[in-house]
Amino acid sequence: MELFYSYDSDGRFCRLDADESGHCVRVLRHRAGDEIHVIDGQGTMFRCRLMDDNPKGAEAEVLEAFPGWGGHPYRLTVACCPTKNNDRFEWFVEKATEVGVDRIVPVIGERSERKVYKTDRALRIALSATKQSLKSRIPEIAEPVSVKDFILSEGGVGKSLKLIAYCFEGDTKRISIQEALQAYDGKDVVVLIGPEGDFSPEEARLAVEHGYVPVHLGASRLRTETAAVLAATAVYLAFE
Amino acid sequence: MELFYSYDSDGRFCRLDADESGHCVRVLRHRAGDEIHVIDGQGTMFRCRLMDDNPKGAEAEVLEAFPGWGGHPYRLTVACCPTKNNDRFEWFVEKATEVGVDRIVPVIGERSERKVYKTDRALRIALSATKQSLKSRIPEIAEPVSVKDFILSEGGVGKSLKLIAYCFEGDTKRISIQEALQAYDGKDVVVLIGPEGDFSPEEARLAVEHGYVPVHLGASRLRTETAAVLAATAVYLAFE
Repeated sequence: MELFYSYDSDGRFCRLDADESGHCVRVLRHRAGDEIHVIDGQGTMFRCRLMDDNPKGAEAEVLEAFPGWGGHPYRLTVACCPTKNNDRFEWFVEKATEVGVDRIVPVIGERSERKVYKTDRALRIALSATKQSLKSRIPEIAEPVSVKDFILSEGGVGKSLKLIAYCFEGDTKRISIQEALQAYDGKDVVVLIGPEGDFSPEEARLAVEHGYVPVHLGASRLRTETAAVLAATAVYLAFE
Repeated sequence: MELFYSYDSDGRFCRLDADESGHCVRVLRHRAGDEIHVIDGQGTMFRCRLMDDNPKGAEAEVLEAFPGWGGHPYRLTVACCPTKNNDRFEWFVEKATEVGVDRIVPVIGERSERKVYKTDRALRIALSATKQSLKSRIPEIAEPVSVKDFILSEGGVGKSLKLIAYCFEGDTKRISIQEALQAYDGKDVVVLIGPEGDFSPEEARLAVEHGYVPVHLGASRLRTETAAVLAATAVYLAFE
């Protein structure tokens, strides 16, 4: 099953941009009258009839709408510090999208080696992984913010389960991510994953002050991007 | 913490090959008398004193041995069909090693597009990921075998939990991988993951005849390598 993404759909018609139109018409040789499947990137899949097979701007008529198609029963934000090696962060974006994530926030920690992150490639990867894994909602890729600003911005949200994966020194007790998920009966989960050099003690303290639960991800020492995908997987499995 | 791998250790002395010696002596500038940490790749880490700082063949004396260092409380084999794109399979090798796997078997299915797989790069990746994630045992990378031969060779093993992730058509009931793991009280798990084109019905039937439990990995449609890492993660989390 092949999915096309429409940047502009009103529930009756779906318009494809030049990339998607070219793929649909030139590569896959669809012609007016063909049935195609289009996602709006917001959570709905449309069964459509291709009306205009213009390879630079195709248009299709909606035959049937499937809201919530390919969705998951939780709402997950993963805030993760971009890795030195960009490929590794992009790999996380792809894998988390396949498994099921709603929002990815690149956060810059005090100890982050990478202080700047451009979201354009991650957006393309998220779109491609959404289509490949047969989902209709593209995860949001937020603009980068500092770890502290992210903590403060999420701090007010009442009912979400907020987790921080951090090696707390001293006597801060940590539970496993599964224990934290098991004890929670809501659907909104926020996970914060630090940079290669970990969070600063100030960042960790601020998170705990703002309701973040310190968790561990088991006994293995994981790379940043592996920790982020493992956290998304733990949420996915917990809601299975 | 930096780990070196010794291909030749007798419990009293550890010898490093040219690669590891060069990294230890030329790159990290260790000199005779320095304390270094060496793994034997078999499950033991040694605290050592560098005796001979020859950059082509260094040798260290064991001060203390830590058997089982960085180990995990299960024994996991993941048999997975190599992906068309080699990078994706190698990514699985790296991530499964970080999370914790004992044996990786590249298996060739009837519907595999890739019929040949060379293990040399995977071996290097497994070694590197073992050191990076602070483990002392390098997962075994087996030579490729056909899916059917793998099923037959594992069929005799009595107490292991054998799982096959497959979209069984018709009325074959599948449980989730977590349910299968929860119902099992042993430590030996074998997971079989098919190629992009899935297993053939004959392969699936043969697996079930030989005691494989059909499982699903949740609602998301995952790429081969994502399914393999998710399965390893589910085992890791189940034994946490």
